Amino acid sequence: MNGNSFGRLFQVTTFGESHGEAMGVTVSGCPAGLELSEEDIQGDLDRRKPGQSKISTSRGEPDDVAIKSGVQDGYTTGTPIGMVIQNKDARSGKYEPFITAPRPSHGDFTYSSKFGTRNWGGGGRSSARETVNWVAAGAIAKKLLKQEGVELKAHVNQIGDVEAPEVSFEQMLEHSEENDVRCADPDAAAEMQELIEDYQEKGDSIGGSIYFEARGVPRGLGAPRFDSVESRLGQAMMSVPATTAFEFGLGKDAREVSGYDRNDHWEFDENDEPVPAENDHGGLQGGITSGEPIYGEVTLHAPTSIPKTQQTVDWETGEEKEEKVIGRHDPVLPPRGVPVVEAMLALTLVDFMLLSGRINPDRVDGQVGEYDTDYHPSSPRNE
Amino acid sequence: MNGNSFGRLFQVTTFGESHGEAMGVTVSGCPAGLELSEEDIQGDLDRRKPGQSKISTSRGEPDDVAIKSGVQDGYTTGTPIGMVIQNKDARSGKYEPFITAPRPSHGDFTYSSKFGTRNWGGGGRSSARETVNWVAAGAIAKKLLKQEGVELKAHVNQIGDVEAPEVSFEQMLEHSEENDVRCADPDAAAEMQELIEDYQEKGDSIGGSIYFEARGVPRGLGAPRFDSVESRLGQAMMSVPATTAFEFGLGKDAREVSGYDRNDHWEFDENDEPVPAENDHGGLQGGITSGEPIYGEVTLHAPTSIPKTQQTVDWETGEEKEEKVIGRHDPVLPPRGVPVVEAMLALTLVDFMLLSGRINPDRVDGQVGEYDTDYHPSSPRNE
Amino acid sequence: MNGNSFGRLFQVTTFGESHGEAMGVTVSGCPAGLELSEEDIQGDLDRRKPGQSKISTSRGEPDDVAIKSGVQDGYTTGTPIGMVIQNKDARSGKYEPFITAPRPSHGDFTYSSKFGTRNWGGGGRSSARETVNWVAAGAIAKKLLKQEGVELKAHVNQIGDVEAPEVSFEQMLEHSEENDVRCADPDAAAEMQELIEDYQEKGDSIGGSIYFEARGVPRGLGAPRFDSVESRLGQAMMSVPATTAFEFGLGKDAREVSGYDRNDHWEFDENDEPVPAENDHGGLQGGITSGEPIYGEVTLHAPTSIPKTQQTVDWETGEEKEEKVIGRHDPVLPPRGVPVVEAMLALTLVDFMLLSGRINPDRVDGQVGEYDTDYHPSSPRNE
Amino acid sequence: MNGNSFGRLFQVTTFGESHGEAMGVTVSGCPAGLELSEEDIQGDLDRRKPGQSKISTSRGEPDDVAIKSGVQDGYTTGTPIGMVIQNKDARSGKYEPFITAPRPSHGDFTYSSKFGTRNWGGGGRSSARETVNWVAAGAIAKKLLKQEGVELKAHVNQIGDVEAPEVSFEQMLEHSEENDVRCADPDAAAEMQELIEDYQEKGDSIGGSIYFEARGVPRGLGAPRFDSVESRLGQAMMSVPATTAFEFGLGKDAREVSGYDRNDHWEFDENDEPVPAENDHGGLQGGITSGEPIYGEVTLHAPTSIPKTQQTVDWETGEEKEEKVIGRHDPVLPPRGVPVVEAMLALTLVDFMLLSGRINPDRVDGQVGEYDTDYHPSSPRNE
Repeated sequence: MNGNSFGRLFQVTTFGESHGEAMGVTVSGCPAGLELSEEDIQGDLDRRKPGQSKISTSRGEPDDVAIKSGVQDGYTTGTPIGMVIQNKDARSGKYEPFITAPRPSHGDFTYSSKFGTRNWGGGGRSSARETVNWVAAGAIAKKLLKQEGVELKAHVNQIGDVEAPEVSFEQMLEHSEENDVRCADPDAAAEMQELIEDYQEKGDSIGGSIYFEARGVPRGLGAPRFDSVESRLGQAMMSVPATTAFEFGLGKDAREVSGYDRNDHWEFDENDEPVPAENDHGGLQGGITSGEPIYGEVTLHAPTSIPKTQQTVDWETGEEKEEKVIGRHDPVLPPRGVPVVEAMLALTLVDFMLLSGRINPDRVDGQVGEYDTDYHPSSPRNE
Repeated sequence: MNGNSFGRLFQVTTFGESHGEAMGVTVSGCPAGLELSEEDIQGDLDRRKPGQSKISTSRGEPDDVAIKSGVQDGYTTGTPIGMVIQNKDARSGKYEPFITAPRPSHGDFTYSSKFGTRNWGGGGRSSARETVNWVAAGAIAKKLLKQEGVELKAHVNQIGDVEAPEVSFEQMLEHSEENDVRCADPDAAAEMQELIEDYQEKGDSIGGSIYFEARGVPRGLGAPRFDSVESRLGQAMMSVPATTAFEFGLGKDAREVSGYDRNDHWEFDENDEPVPAENDHGGLQGGITSGEPIYGEVTLHAPTSIPKTQQTVDWETGEEKEEKVIGRHDPVLPPRGVPVVEAMLALTLVDFMLLSGRINPDRVDGQVGEYDTDYHPSSPRNE
Repeated sequence: MNGNSFGRLFQVTTFGESHGEAMGVTVSGCPAGLELSEEDIQGDLDRRKPGQSKISTSRGEPDDVAIKSGVQDGYTTGTPIGMVIQNKDARSGKYEPFITAPRPSHGDFTYSSKFGTRNWGGGGRSSARETVNWVAAGAIAKKLLKQEGVELKAHVNQIGDVEAPEVSFEQMLEHSEENDVRCADPDAAAEMQELIEDYQEKGDSIGGSIYFEARGVPRGLGAPRFDSVESRLGQAMMSVPATTAFEFGLGKDAREVSGYDRNDHWEFDENDEPVPAENDHGGLQGGITSGEPIYGEVTLHAPTSIPKTQQTVDWETGEEKEEKVIGRHDPVLPPRGVPVVEAMLALTLVDFMLLSGRINPDRVDGQVGEYDTDYHPSSPRNE
Repeated sequence: MNGNSFGRLFQVTTFGESHGEAMGVTVSGCPAGLELSEEDIQGDLDRRKPGQSKISTSRGEPDDVAIKSGVQDGYTTGTPIGMVIQNKDARSGKYEPFITAPRPSHGDFTYSSKFGTRNWGGGGRSSARETVNWVAAGAIAKKLLKQEGVELKAHVNQIGDVEAPEVSFEQMLEHSEENDVRCADPDAAAEMQELIEDYQEKGDSIGGSIYFEARGVPRGLGAPRFDSVESRLGQAMMSVPATTAFEFGLGKDAREVSGYDRNDHWEFDENDEPVPAENDHGGLQGGITSGEPIYGEVTLHAPTSIPKTQQTVDWETGEEKEEKVIGRHDPVLPPRGVPVVEAMLALTLVDFMLLSGRINPDRVDGQVGEYDTDYHPSSPRNE
């Protein structure tokens, strides 16, 4: 209801504002017996972290995660995993001039309309700072999925008018983290970097998009209609700050394609199992997984907070004014958005794995601390 | 969980399969005191109805709705509104050849993978027949919204490569129902009609897209992140059968636009209220309504059921076969999809109106039957 | 939110009022492959039916259930099961005098306060007529549970001050349906019958209670705290009309028992599995099932609608008046409440079975129509 | 699903184990503009705190709450309120002998059956330690309710066979905190204290019950059936550790009362509003509030952890053994349970106040920091 919880069996609940004391996330529904430490989570947090490159905000946040509950002797216990990340470099002072003068296209005005609050703290809850919580939760989901043979990856496939050529999943795995833009194609990455820096120098910003793909998702996950994989993915991805478009499969291009051309006819694979000859359907048919890779794209608009002088009005003084946003901001979002999109993809898929019973909602097999989860009184799985 | 319910305070739960006995929908959370009759609902059902034109399936369904509960003396009572629509022209026989040979890109195979069922009944629950329930529920949502000054409309803005020019909200209201394609631009409509007929004659089908817009939505509706208006709209629209893309505001184009160009700076309106000078933000900032029109676009791929001969395999006999789908199908989806998209938009918005308390969740003002809802013991609103 | 839905994976949504056209229930989340026909459901409906005995209301309702969807060739398809039960003997006329003069302790006044409506239709949604929907849904849950070796039963253990002696589960199964009171002890049943008839002759009514028990529930079902089995059972049972108390295990008596006396110490069973020596804990420890029988008790107050003359006031005329309720009503609730309590117990337990993965949420094994659910492409269970 | 979240619009999500690093709770859906500081919360935490008296566990926990988000300049911002409480005196070592030998009637065995874990950490999530989170959240709910004129209180009305005489709401407010037992009747309190100490000396424990009451709840709150006030209260109270019975109004005694005696006939109050002459209905009719006080009772069984020697078995060694629980435990639960029951009552009621729109879900009136919530762009309430 309140925009702070996501998921059904794998439930994520978050708190924290851009310039508050700390960010926090509670993960409910992670089965017992998953080996888990802060190291498993820190890696993705570092990929999302501010100040990691020339083309990200200069805000300095170590984003060290602390697990407060739900893990014992290095394994999850099945109880909620509480995690807290301190805000170290919050400087709300910077935003004071905007308290009653909304920044163009920022959340200031709409938040004031809803909550009656003013813009302190650099956007508070509307800030993308919140996504640090998602990435922490997503890292746990990724680890669970990996145990089931589900792998996923995202990379930046367009910035402004610079479009990357199509890349394979393997290329994404191998190259997307090799450059600051997080584009798996090195040449496109270089062009994108240049373009971003141009906008940065102008005190402006630019939009872009992220391509995502998941492999090894079993057949038969999902549900009809309102809880179809694409519906839940749509909600997940449209929650990502600055997202203005979500597509899967042929996406928007599908409108120009005929049924005959788009339809993927059936053939037998080496095990005489039916398989589609192609994957224009993006791994989803009737809202349910076909076993083919799930892929799609998310478009993020340009950051609204730019150093350039802009027009606004002060609703308390009643005067029009020109303002510069002095805060520290990103000139472009997709590079830091890649781990966020991966997290939302992982959270969505792990939920479907649990809902279908493919992941035991009580516990994964293996060890719990020094104990073997398969031996214990009346294991639901041994009955 | 199961793909059969949508909404939070205004909850819609549906049942029914393409070739079952009846479709049905229960609407919970409609306040008492709304004047409502079957006529209010039938209009939209007729817009969605099969067999309404040369370019829609020839399946003959009157789609007469019967209200079974929740309405008394012509007004809602605040209790669930149960509606049933009989299936009159179900012919599952037609689909028998496909029972173990999945139709290309249809839901047959994935449904079998999940439920272990075979494709009887022309896709059963995966069929767009289900959307008759949504349109019935949506008609109630529209009526509630209209009382609050919220109006909404959709039209077909592209079929194949035929794109309609931009139209105003007023043009959509006036012209979109004047042609079978439901495009508000008559010339584009004619071109689209021609294109559709070409594909129809070839035994093929074609994709397209629908533009939607809502006016009069008050400021401050929505919530951060996971329950932002765009997240809930994303889920709603991605639930529409055959949808492969959802966009709002600048949508996918936003990736090529700079922050300075996209940002809508603030000025004062005639009442000295701050208003954005433009609406590139599509009526939503930080997931919350700005008071500007909410607009976006939904892309629907071409219908997968086509009379053309296609390749498939029979997983029981193990043989490859060529098949024609003999069923009665639409050569294109957007024309009949327009009322469906409107319904999902209305259901999403009415839920936010209730969640914000702007619509009294217990009852609307006015009459309940012959009685005045404002006079009665301890009206929550009179306290 | 709206009081019309129950359950999480096994979701029940209802509509219908006491004197409306029809009652209806949609069951979402029943796995595919369950053999199901209207006969499986009718039996429990007949046990709840009005007019079944001298001590139940004379309202004549056949309560014939019609399945509208979700079942094909005699097996569930995994899609929502829509059921409708017509109201045949609705006579709201009878209640007119009470339209603005609330019946003592009835829902008339509070419904008016919430919905602004008047009391037409004999209580509308607040009527126990609604429970016909629950019993229909519960019959499906019972059948699913039985396949997993879970059996449950309830009987009337007290009416007024007539208390039945303790009976075994086997006695409940064998004798509770042999008399109109539904008490498994014949002598107590006779006494209860006499007591009820005394109150009936006086134009009065009397309260009572229902004991319930479930056998064969596997160990390890449930969750901590807010979703513990007792929490969900508490919500379920307190939803039963006229319920004023819910207890499990030692229930209210537990307050007078010492820890040492109540604690059930552990011993080994024949398979060297730990088992509690007794079952004062009622099958639940820490909110999770121990494998011992789950048992408890529900208290129902006397029916509020009685023919006796009572005092009320008319809020429109402002006059005090004496009124008799002329409607057809039960002199006591537990006898007809037994199948309702069983239904809520079954709905609660089947949900936990699905949530734990012990029942495959997609489908049960066995046949779907003429097809074997175990053979089909990529059975999630064969992977 | 997972037992870690409660509430619908006012959502509470918790984490933490008895012997983990910290407890934590996130409150989503608290409106903006509520003046709030840690002091508002600490008071109730101190009432629940261990080691507060001779008859509570000697575990030493300051239970200092730290607000991490959702409050700025002393007022809530409408965003989630994250709170953390450190565990200072965790000593899991004490429980080692029980790792594979379940304590009688404790959660050890059922938790192992579900999660495959062993009992480290004194019960982990099944420990009543968790309720510290509820009390913190409940304190916020109480403050919101107080602003709307809703007051609530609980006290201990029975321990073992010592029953307190009936007391007025005013007596509860005045006297229940004057003694360690939290019974509003001083003489009964003294007797209870003596009884508890007897059991304590014997190394045993004893059960008891808590009476609760809420005043000033407006008419018309609630919903039919599954979301009736009593259903939600039932779930809330049955979540309280060791609860075996929930009652409201006449509760269990209702089964011996006739309809005529229980029915509360209607008369006019000084404002010519209909009011019930009595309140045997406990403030609820048809699941909806009548405006009369809501009252009921919760029974808590004796603590299962007692120093006395008890029989158990070790499922790993296969031997039967005698064990003493050495941990620090309460000889009785109701005295510390009083603030917990109040918290669950407050959380349940505030949710209904929000759902009915009686509390503005976006913000309460008054100040937000130095700003007036009534003046700002397009207040939803000023429109």
